Amino acid sequence: MAFSYLFKHLKYVIVVLSVFCTLTMEAQTDEDAFFIRSVYDQALSHGQAYPWLYHLTTDIGGRLAGSPQAAAAVEYTRQMLDTMGLDTVYLQACEVPRWVRGNPEVVRVAQSAMGSFDLKATALGNSVGTGPDGIAAEIVEVKSFDELDALGARGSVKGKIVFFNREMDPNQINTFAAYGGAVDQRVYGASKAAKHGALAVLVRSMTNRRDDIPHTGSTVYEDGVKQIPAVAISTNDSDKLSRLLKMQAVRVYIQTNCAMLTPVTSYNVIGEIRGSEYPDELILVGGHLDSWDTGQGAHDDGSGCVQSMDVLFLLKSLGYKPKRTIRCVLFMNEENGLAGGKAYWAASNAASEYHMAAIESDRGGFTPQGFSADGHADVLQAKYRQLTTWLPLLEPYGLHFSTGGSGADISGLKDQKGLLLGFVPDSQRYFDFHHTHTDRIEAVNRRELQLGSAAMASLVYLLDKYGLE
Amino acid sequence: MAFSYLFKHLKYVIVVLSVFCTLTMEAQTDEDAFFIRSVYDQALSHGQAYPWLYHLTTDIGGRLAGSPQAAAAVEYTRQMLDTMGLDTVYLQACEVPRWVRGNPEVVRVAQSAMGSFDLKATALGNSVGTGPDGIAAEIVEVKSFDELDALGARGSVKGKIVFFNREMDPNQINTFAAYGGAVDQRVYGASKAAKHGALAVLVRSMTNRRDDIPHTGSTVYEDGVKQIPAVAISTNDSDKLSRLLKMQAVRVYIQTNCAMLTPVTSYNVIGEIRGSEYPDELILVGGHLDSWDTGQGAHDDGSGCVQSMDVLFLLKSLGYKPKRTIRCVLFMNEENGLAGGKAYWAASNAASEYHMAAIESDRGGFTPQGFSADGHADVLQAKYRQLTTWLPLLEPYGLHFSTGGSGADISGLKDQKGLLLGFVPDSQRYFDFHHTHTDRIEAVNRRELQLGSAAMASLVYLLDKYGLE
Repeated sequence: MAFSYLFKHLKYVIVVLSVFCTLTMEAQTDEDAFFIRSVYDQALSHGQAYPWLYHLTTDIGGRLAGSPQAAAAVEYTRQMLDTMGLDTVYLQACEVPRWVRGNPEVVRVAQSAMGSFDLKATALGNSVGTGPDGIAAEIVEVKSFDELDALGARGSVKGKIVFFNREMDPNQINTFAAYGGAVDQRVYGASKAAKHGALAVLVRSMTNRRDDIPHTGSTVYEDGVKQIPAVAISTNDSDKLSRLLKMQAVRVYIQTNCAMLTPVTSYNVIGEIRGSEYPDELILVGGHLDSWDTGQGAHDDGSGCVQSMDVLFLLKSLGYKPKRTIRCVLFMNEENGLAGGKAYWAASNAASEYHMAAIESDRGGFTPQGFSADGHADVLQAKYRQLTTWLPLLEPYGLHFSTGGSGADISGLKDQKGLLLGFVPDSQRYFDFHHTHTDRIEAVNRRELQLGSAAMASLVYLLDKYGLE
Repeated sequence: MAFSYLFKHLKYVIVVLSVFCTLTMEAQTDEDAFFIRSVYDQALSHGQAYPWLYHLTTDIGGRLAGSPQAAAAVEYTRQMLDTMGLDTVYLQACEVPRWVRGNPEVVRVAQSAMGSFDLKATALGNSVGTGPDGIAAEIVEVKSFDELDALGARGSVKGKIVFFNREMDPNQINTFAAYGGAVDQRVYGASKAAKHGALAVLVRSMTNRRDDIPHTGSTVYEDGVKQIPAVAISTNDSDKLSRLLKMQAVRVYIQTNCAMLTPVTSYNVIGEIRGSEYPDELILVGGHLDSWDTGQGAHDDGSGCVQSMDVLFLLKSLGYKPKRTIRCVLFMNEENGLAGGKAYWAASNAASEYHMAAIESDRGGFTPQGFSADGHADVLQAKYRQLTTWLPLLEPYGLHFSTGGSGADISGLKDQKGLLLGFVPDSQRYFDFHHTHTDRIEAVNRRELQLGSAAMASLVYLLDKYGLE
């Protein structure tokens, strides 16, 4: 009877059920909107990202992998995570290269139609030194590897210093796209030029600005190719040198005093809140703790580290008990080796961990615009669709989703078939400061930084509450 | 026969017609996307906004209405518009107040448990002076007009200096909303306090930052109420004074040396491209040329002026021939009287002009987020709907629409029943600089400024091409 009654009145049951579901869903959405609002309130009024960043930048400073400052940053962030009452805080060892800049580099035009002048220069990370005598040779300017190869084939590169001078495209709206279109010169230029017999390379700084600030960043030497010195020069000096080359042959003197010392042990810093229902489903938030030596590593990537720590702080301080494990990872050596990332992936994959989601913040502490999603081809589309169902909760805070890259430190987790996410802030100012002495706390706006913590914590909350299939 | 044949084959006709329509629409959309892309390329590579702003801020400086700098700015921008080959460039006279700050203001705690100290202070615009002897009296702190009235009713305000110390709400995501929630203290505080017999007012600076920078801005005296001096003090000093008041009664000495002189004639600067098909349908772009005297008026509102000029430059330099009349208006005296706006509305309404759309840029030269739409209640909804049909063309540039305020200088055009739009950039940093000596060219990022020109020009193009019903 119960069955036949049910069947007879099925349409009413369906109506009642759907009303119930709608009400439940609305209640859920209201609850979610309320919680996210409280995350933002907490971040803007009581977030810890800014004071942590202040210490990391001002009291510790630039944190090149293997440096005393990097060790201090490991210990400081470990202690800060320790104050939060997390379930676990630990260090994960990794072996990092120990590159040192040595005395300031010199790039000098000794005599020319524009007189004698020093160019604003900074040796690229991992570059070899010239030795105390330096190198003096004629400059040859190129805009691309094709041009280099054509000149090289004619023997016009041998014994010269190659000057890579292709600009970042100013018309790209997203400055990271412009960076991606020019950074091959910095990363691979030295070995490409060395194959043609070049003695050293100068590289136009990676920025859209015209200014006097040289931008460092890693160069990668190809195995089996002679390692030659690689130096970045400011965009103003790049333009000046290029103008001069249109007037006459130019000889340049370069001195770099860098050295690659013996690798040392350093650490990723990890803290986590263990999930109550699905502890084996991991949600990672992270940034990289190392930075270049020239500035304070404020935007790159002190911001990403303190925002990731703040995600745990905000959720803890709001009394949120996650179902899934939320893990903050501060990676070491992203800038010149990725040793921390590699150690983390190896350990995670060996332990058959499942990162349901991983969010890296490594694009600066600017006003949030959303998240960029990446993942294994088998799962990306479906998981991305799930993500977009949360848009109504996040759009009021100016957050949107796109597909694209995530972050270097989490890229090796792709085979776990979770969702990899890059936090996307406004990109316009990032390359004003990137890898320079101006990447300091003064370049970071407190509210913009706090809004990033809140954006990440809000997404972590939704990922934790609803999961990803 | 033709008819019956047509009828018989109507379904094919419909198919053919809809294919045709779809192709035409797609062709249009492609053409629009292509043109908008070219607007952005032009703005980012060849836009004039930044060099114009550089001159306006660095060579001319702060441009308080009635000042020599304001006159220089009128002449400079007129000349720049004149170089563009527009159809008309002219000045529109308006009578502006001539307020002068005089010697630097002093706000001093002569003796207290925290010693003797000067507070970082700036007289509010339009404030009267104290006279050379200044005013010394006891401070009474309030957070609201209700609190003031309650104290006043008990006779506790008479003979005192009222200290308005309500903070801007840090939890508002949009900083303009936080400003709106606190600025009544600055605008109306002096007259409200005077009614209770206060001798002067101190007002907490309108910013979310904690720093040592006082923010000026207009105070408005109520007719028939005694005019008393009004001074802003920095947020750090507001906090300090408030702490001190919890410990003891505090006497403060205030000296302001301001004066309101005889009004003078100044001008709005106007340039336009006359429409080829509907010259009487106006599309206005504008900002205000005057600024406070303390800084260079870079974000407020040099940015809005040069972006509006750049809209004409970009469209002209791309060879675009508008159907409708595109008019750039640089308004005078927005900051302390709105005389330019009022003169413009009066002339426009008297001439029965129709502003189909008006866009004001007066929220700083930061990364664009979209436009806020306002208008007469009869037309707003329908016109807003039309606007949103262009979203697919603008969202790739991070632009969205909302309803809300437009701009003070165009608000008086509402009865013409066009659409009033406020350009909306990222608001996080605006009140770091607003009405202070730090609102200088160094605070403006070239690319962010250029993207604003491009956003406005793109919307003007769509408004011109498709119109608004």
